[in-house]
Amino acid sequence: MIDLAILKEIAVRTPTKIVLLVLDGLGGLPLQETGKTELETARTPNLDRLAVGGICGLSDPVSPGITPGSGPAHLSLFGYDPVRFLVGRGVLEALGIDFDLHQGDVAARGNFCTTDENGLITDRRAGRITTAKNIELCRMLNQIKIAGIELFVLPVKEHRLAVVFRGRGLSGEVQDTDPQQTGLLPRKAAPLSPDAEKMAAAANEFLLRARSALMDSHPANMVLLRGFSRRPSLPQMSEVLKLSPAAIAAYPMYRGLARLMGMQVLDTGSTFADELDTLARHWQGHDFFYVHVKQTDSAGEDGDFDRKVRAIEEVDALLPRLIRLNPDVLIVTGDHSTPAVLKGHSWHPVPILLHSKHCRPDKTREFSESACLEGGLGRMPATDIMPLAMANALKLNKFGA
Amino acid sequence: MIDLAILKEIAVRTPTKIVLLVLDGLGGLPLQETGKTELETARTPNLDRLAVGGICGLSDPVSPGITPGSGPAHLSLFGYDPVRFLVGRGVLEALGIDFDLHQGDVAARGNFCTTDENGLITDRRAGRITTAKNIELCRMLNQIKIAGIELFVLPVKEHRLAVVFRGRGLSGEVQDTDPQQTGLLPRKAAPLSPDAEKMAAAANEFLLRARSALMDSHPANMVLLRGFSRRPSLPQMSEVLKLSPAAIAAYPMYRGLARLMGMQVLDTGSTFADELDTLARHWQGHDFFYVHVKQTDSAGEDGDFDRKVRAIEEVDALLPRLIRLNPDVLIVTGDHSTPAVLKGHSWHPVPILLHSKHCRPDKTREFSESACLEGGLGRMPATDIMPLAMANALKLNKFGA
Repeated sequence: MIDLAILKEIAVRTPTKIVLLVLDGLGGLPLQETGKTELETARTPNLDRLAVGGICGLSDPVSPGITPGSGPAHLSLFGYDPVRFLVGRGVLEALGIDFDLHQGDVAARGNFCTTDENGLITDRRAGRITTAKNIELCRMLNQIKIAGIELFVLPVKEHRLAVVFRGRGLSGEVQDTDPQQTGLLPRKAAPLSPDAEKMAAAANEFLLRARSALMDSHPANMVLLRGFSRRPSLPQMSEVLKLSPAAIAAYPMYRGLARLMGMQVLDTGSTFADELDTLARHWQGHDFFYVHVKQTDSAGEDGDFDRKVRAIEEVDALLPRLIRLNPDVLIVTGDHSTPAVLKGHSWHPVPILLHSKHCRPDKTREFSESACLEGGLGRMPATDIMPLAMANALKLNKFGA
Repeated sequence: MIDLAILKEIAVRTPTKIVLLVLDGLGGLPLQETGKTELETARTPNLDRLAVGGICGLSDPVSPGITPGSGPAHLSLFGYDPVRFLVGRGVLEALGIDFDLHQGDVAARGNFCTTDENGLITDRRAGRITTAKNIELCRMLNQIKIAGIELFVLPVKEHRLAVVFRGRGLSGEVQDTDPQQTGLLPRKAAPLSPDAEKMAAAANEFLLRARSALMDSHPANMVLLRGFSRRPSLPQMSEVLKLSPAAIAAYPMYRGLARLMGMQVLDTGSTFADELDTLARHWQGHDFFYVHVKQTDSAGEDGDFDRKVRAIEEVDALLPRLIRLNPDVLIVTGDHSTPAVLKGHSWHPVPILLHSKHCRPDKTREFSESACLEGGLGRMPATDIMPLAMANALKLNKFGA
């Protein structure tokens, strides 16, 4: 991958517009009966037409064989080395509930759990209490005061919560307090580096007070924390790529990731049609649009091949509305593969389609994994997608004399 | 390539089994008359059937254009950066005679040579003395005592020997004493770094005493040493990949390389049929098997196109025995190319075939260089093979949240 510092040197502001349409978990695996993947099964006349005029290929989000989480997969899509720039689990959890993390904040994932009279964990999920109960308990825990720390105790769903610690000099290098099994005491939040002592002390103080506060709240009478992590400080797309980038995503986690990279997050409804409305409404205001569709991934995660096929077809059916906006560069791809047959993210390379006036079209006649295999983009690391998008939008000057 | 530290984080132990079948020097070049390589000429119905259900591609052992020795080629196959982890020539020579190198040992290749009355080298190979004579002389040299050093003088073949120095604080950074031409004095074993002074002194003392001991053994009246190297300390496959790995190889050097990576070396006979017996016998005891076939490389090195074709066909004919064991992941590849027309290792990318339930099959209908060129694995660095094998065996967790 090209270094961001080099991109920063050669990127220029132009009026041309780029749309990066991400169908989450797009890549798939064939059904045994048909030999066709989800994308190959779906009727996609509009995507196929784009493939004819465009150039296709396959991308690796991290490296061959590596199955990425949503964090690394998205960072890579936007040109950030996913091994160097890590987004921790606590940070992702906080982004996932639309919490506005500040520079320096440390976030952790939490569980309400049940402990017995000796403090030993008997249920790591506190019997999966209701979200309503969770909200009530978090309101109580939010009363806890720790000197020098601003505390945010944020309900997620059922027994899950996020805790954000705001203050000076906090590090995310703190051990999980969740021992990941019952019959044990919760662990201390031990510092994993000397820098993390202040953070560990704050976490331990929070947990001590939480235990008292929850004393009468059986089965949710304790909290376990894991995935302590500091909001990463990412180079901003506006600075590095000279873009005015906007994100259109119905799911909070993707909005949160976009915010980390400096994208302006646009208000939008939850369907792809809503997202296209948002896109049209803000078309004049930005030169880069990231549009995220979650349904493909959700169907894949649920192992629902047919629903993933339908999700792809629904996007295809509305695509003419996007095409009519006439972006200079339109890329359709996924952040990773989520084959329905594996019911989860996978390591398989992701189909990508790039359409622009300047793309040197290949012979691809349709958008599918097997057609992409013969596409002109070849097999590429996903981190090369942004430089290619920029180049096709004529937003990159020559490198070197 | 993905960092071993990351693999270590995400690798998990599962009951699934991987077989990596290495046909040494598999890749070839076409005969002018037929336009077909050795692999393309061979009748390989079983490999072709695997290719139909599997996914193919081409790998580069080190980098395009680089012809690897057996050391780097094998390290790369097992996921080790072949440029970072070097196996020295002396170490390879000692491994090649099944010598059990310990941590910290330094080994050198040796030649018996002839010197004249002034000590000038007149024949670098001592008239290629018999191996019997070599064994007799090595027995004599093994009597040499050096303070603080345990010495092993090991006969190889004809005029060739290996010398292993065992002791504390030895470094391999010592200059060759072999000047590589006649009419010169043997060089001193000069230290190439301050750390290597102890090792250089030991080598010089050995050579001084060897000269006296060999005084009456014309034409083998002196020893030349080169390729001083310390046994590399490689991350162990069991720790990094959480595998219980076994090696089945008839040739000692490959057993030695496997040992460096922490594989358990299984006793086996010398034919592929013997190796398959060994595999079946130990099937329950391991979850990763490296099976090495040397004949393809030997035929290539001899420039014997037809013999290399036959060696490939012999493997293919016995393949059903391996397939019946039903490994979750079966990979067939080479460590490098050895085209018969070049009579030696070459830089050409190596055909690879991966068969597993989760591999997203491509359209490849046969296992050959030209079919692999259109395969779904594309062109890959060989260091990606192990991550892909692990992924297909569902032995890698997601990277990042």
